[in-house]
Amino acid sequence: MGKKIVIVGGVAAGPKAACRVKRLMQDADVTIIDQDTLISYGGCGIPYYVSGDVSDESELRSTSFHMVRNEEFFKNAKGITIKSGTRALGIDRKEKCVNVEDVASGEKADIPYDILMIATGSKPFVLPIPGADLDGVFTISDLHKAIEIKKRIATGKVDKAVVIGGGAIGLEMAEAFKDLWGVTTSIVEFMPQVLPRIVDFPMASMVTKHMRDNEVDIFLGEGAEEILGEDGKVTGLRTGNRTIDADIVIMAAGVRPRSEIAGEAGLQLSPMGAIVVNERMQTSDPSIYAAGDCVEVMHQVSGKKFYAPLGSLANKEGRVAGDNMAGIPSKFKGAVGSFIMKAFDVCVGATGLSLEVALAEGYDADVALTAPSDRAHFFPTEAIVCFQMVFDRRTRKVLGLQGFGPMGDGISARIDAAAAYISMGASIDDFANLEMAYAPPFSAAIDSINAVAYVADNLCDGRLRKTSIESFLSWMDDESTQDNWLALDIRHPLEAGPCVEKFGAEKWLAIPYNEVRERYNELPHDKTMIILCDAGTRSFEIQSFLNSVGYENSLVLSGGFNMMRRIGIDWYPS
Amino acid sequence: MGKKIVIVGGVAAGPKAACRVKRLMQDADVTIIDQDTLISYGGCGIPYYVSGDVSDESELRSTSFHMVRNEEFFKNAKGITIKSGTRALGIDRKEKCVNVEDVASGEKADIPYDILMIATGSKPFVLPIPGADLDGVFTISDLHKAIEIKKRIATGKVDKAVVIGGGAIGLEMAEAFKDLWGVTTSIVEFMPQVLPRIVDFPMASMVTKHMRDNEVDIFLGEGAEEILGEDGKVTGLRTGNRTIDADIVIMAAGVRPRSEIAGEAGLQLSPMGAIVVNERMQTSDPSIYAAGDCVEVMHQVSGKKFYAPLGSLANKEGRVAGDNMAGIPSKFKGAVGSFIMKAFDVCVGATGLSLEVALAEGYDADVALTAPSDRAHFFPTEAIVCFQMVFDRRTRKVLGLQGFGPMGDGISARIDAAAAYISMGASIDDFANLEMAYAPPFSAAIDSINAVAYVADNLCDGRLRKTSIESFLSWMDDESTQDNWLALDIRHPLEAGPCVEKFGAEKWLAIPYNEVRERYNELPHDKTMIILCDAGTRSFEIQSFLNSVGYENSLVLSGGFNMMRRIGIDWYPS
Repeated sequence: MGKKIVIVGGVAAGPKAACRVKRLMQDADVTIIDQDTLISYGGCGIPYYVSGDVSDESELRSTSFHMVRNEEFFKNAKGITIKSGTRALGIDRKEKCVNVEDVASGEKADIPYDILMIATGSKPFVLPIPGADLDGVFTISDLHKAIEIKKRIATGKVDKAVVIGGGAIGLEMAEAFKDLWGVTTSIVEFMPQVLPRIVDFPMASMVTKHMRDNEVDIFLGEGAEEILGEDGKVTGLRTGNRTIDADIVIMAAGVRPRSEIAGEAGLQLSPMGAIVVNERMQTSDPSIYAAGDCVEVMHQVSGKKFYAPLGSLANKEGRVAGDNMAGIPSKFKGAVGSFIMKAFDVCVGATGLSLEVALAEGYDADVALTAPSDRAHFFPTEAIVCFQMVFDRRTRKVLGLQGFGPMGDGISARIDAAAAYISMGASIDDFANLEMAYAPPFSAAIDSINAVAYVADNLCDGRLRKTSIESFLSWMDDESTQDNWLALDIRHPLEAGPCVEKFGAEKWLAIPYNEVRERYNELPHDKTMIILCDAGTRSFEIQSFLNSVGYENSLVLSGGFNMMRRIGIDWYPS
Repeated sequence: MGKKIVIVGGVAAGPKAACRVKRLMQDADVTIIDQDTLISYGGCGIPYYVSGDVSDESELRSTSFHMVRNEEFFKNAKGITIKSGTRALGIDRKEKCVNVEDVASGEKADIPYDILMIATGSKPFVLPIPGADLDGVFTISDLHKAIEIKKRIATGKVDKAVVIGGGAIGLEMAEAFKDLWGVTTSIVEFMPQVLPRIVDFPMASMVTKHMRDNEVDIFLGEGAEEILGEDGKVTGLRTGNRTIDADIVIMAAGVRPRSEIAGEAGLQLSPMGAIVVNERMQTSDPSIYAAGDCVEVMHQVSGKKFYAPLGSLANKEGRVAGDNMAGIPSKFKGAVGSFIMKAFDVCVGATGLSLEVALAEGYDADVALTAPSDRAHFFPTEAIVCFQMVFDRRTRKVLGLQGFGPMGDGISARIDAAAAYISMGASIDDFANLEMAYAPPFSAAIDSINAVAYVADNLCDGRLRKTSIESFLSWMDDESTQDNWLALDIRHPLEAGPCVEKFGAEKWLAIPYNEVRERYNELPHDKTMIILCDAGTRSFEIQSFLNSVGYENSLVLSGGFNMMRRIGIDWYPS
């Protein structure tokens, strides 16, 4: 037998590294320890198991060729020993052994290693509020919890669900409850938007509206203060503003690295408790590797370490760890933090930094928005997509991209291309010429990702003066400032007409796009004009023209009506 | 008025440049000359107009907000003068004017310019064979031809169609005839595969099979020798091998740059006749720009100029030309040659160099193939996708990627991400860690693009020994060599059983994947073993294991049964 390789943690990074290192060194003695009895599963599939899209939990633990990844599978197919139901208690780095305990019997033992890997993953953050220990309060931390949640729903014990946390897992769980089981479902999010830090306000607002249209209640800017119960069972949730009845409460308030064993062994941890590793996934002890949700990795935009607990990264890190344990000096250079999520009939994706994060990191950041067709506008399956590009004004570097559109792989295509490009340091100008494979059923000759880069280019060079949807909405709500500005609606008269009728031509002037060159002298010089169209493109053209005839007092509404409609503005004439 | 800008050509690059330069310099006097009366249309949409997906040709000439882009539109909305039906006869570079002729009246005139742009596009290659001038023979060169073709089909004049050329336009036109009109349709391609130089054999073969399954006849390796006619009307096509009846013949044998006017004016042309431009789209005369299908651009992989007549590139080049004509020094750095196409229910895409082209260019090129799930294998909409990565063994650079899968945007997502990455010089190792946004409805934790990079990595490092589907198929066909080798089928016994029954255990041995570690001593030492599974992944694992126990005589079948089935091998037990 060759080297003894011991891996603590058997969900994603651990099994991936084990299989890789075994393939590279068939004589290695590879052992995976896990305190759980269910291992090597797709944790990201839990919401789809709960919803019923995935009928049996064993599918989450199976290979693509339908073998369940259990102890026997790892032994026979992979030549890897699994010690499940075995908890790692500590690491003796001097003696090079892991002290373990059999969870069932309490029996203890030492497992020696030549190389150790820590893949202990993450643990859900449990809010320190009263009632967090009531029966019916769940985190989404392992398959057992998922099985129990689904059992409760399937046996009719869940009529009302509350999800604490409007992040990806919270939204996915809410959809699972509502869409397939018809459970009355609410989400409570402490921040003023869903998906905080992942996407910015416009994208988050479109997701919120679509979730609400699908009858999920969403309460933003409300903290969960107490989980209410009776006879030890959950009956509801009290926030700062209201009380919501519930038979089940899901706490989806984020995760933290599970790194106690590493910390106690004296390995270097980050301030938030993640294990510090180099590009070869090696900890501060050269004989110990770590990967997955327990480590932090390099952010390829900010150049700083960040915590990115994602199954896709865990697998890549695991493979790099496996390589290095076998002596191949592979590197995991970092990540840009790509994200994608289905929400009923739409999807939302992001990569790189959000505006909020970019500003907090000190970038001279701004955003470009547009809402064009996702493919040739004459092709029958065409639909509107909304993109926001985050860029640095000083360097013209693209820092991030966010997209919203109908369910399908179209948003993925742009987010993935952007992730590849951003990780290589691409600029606005690179994005303007990014070559998206073109045929009418798939894309537009000027693809949406090029279009948003064009907007960023025009903004960066000071050719485009814009206002945000937030500012426009607050103007619309604030009667006192409305005398200073005028909406210039350049859409077709049939589209603009209802707004003119509702608000009056003093406030809402309609001149069709193709008549502005003739009729611009109808415009006032003493008001700020907000130019409005569907996507923002025509508005920019009109702004350019108006500049040239002495009207420099206009602003383009970023994202236009295509985005405003998807945010669900309440003053819009129906 | 400011500068006089004259643009020859009004389809894609011309109008894009005109609009951009006008927005940047509102005082410029911008004129577009085109010999046609229909301008500014989406030529790539012609097959979808012929098929009926796009009901009216005016949709191809409309904006996304449903205005037809005609002379009036350009005048009113854009402030641009269109002189349609006006042919440019020559350029007087000394006097800076274009000599033009009114196509209808024959009247001639000189149009002076400060800056000229040539956007004359391409012309279809007309095969020099007898009958090319018969009534019923069409090229896909402009909207008038498309309108005439559709009229003939719609009025029942087309029962049988032959398409000469199995490139993208040929295949799209064949689908249009067959799918929506039920016309008996054949494709004749001179090369031994469809989509030559764009994709390699495996991808092309899968497309061919799918087209044939949809009742399009495809004849490969056959040259069109004569178009047959009666009374001046087409009646059929004679190839080297057969005669095919036809009421209509579409010549889709590629296009050539339309650059006569540039050549006659003494501007530098490439050997194939494309206008030579720099990164700012400037010709050898600094006052004359050119863009679109009449120029050649830099290939970002080979570093050589190449001819890429694509509407998407024409628009990007046009914008860069517009910037530069207005004094903004934008650059068009080149392209990687991305391609995507719908063929009935599947799609095929590619970017970068094909293996054939890479070898011809002198790279130490090889390919990795795999055929995994396109998203989490437990997600209900999961499907198999096939990817081929072309890489350079010496530098580990990725030179190209080709993909085949079900119709949708999933192949686009991978091709677009690859195009972005390849244009930045990404290596196999970069692709192994390429961050595809992950959630089960969209992708797999180890995405297909990562998976194919893993295969390339293992090949490059000599850990994976493979054989190609072509070699395997020729072995299967050649009885004389079969004694030297053995198929080792590691799939489930239910899958492998029919092959064992058909070919006998001497030639086709089945040992399930998870039993090989126990049963490897049943294997012979004196034969080359071809290890077979669905995607190729398990086969590599088994090869690694067999190496370690003294069997170094195995080869993995690249792409496995997932690809072989899609190629439609005829010996496979049904």
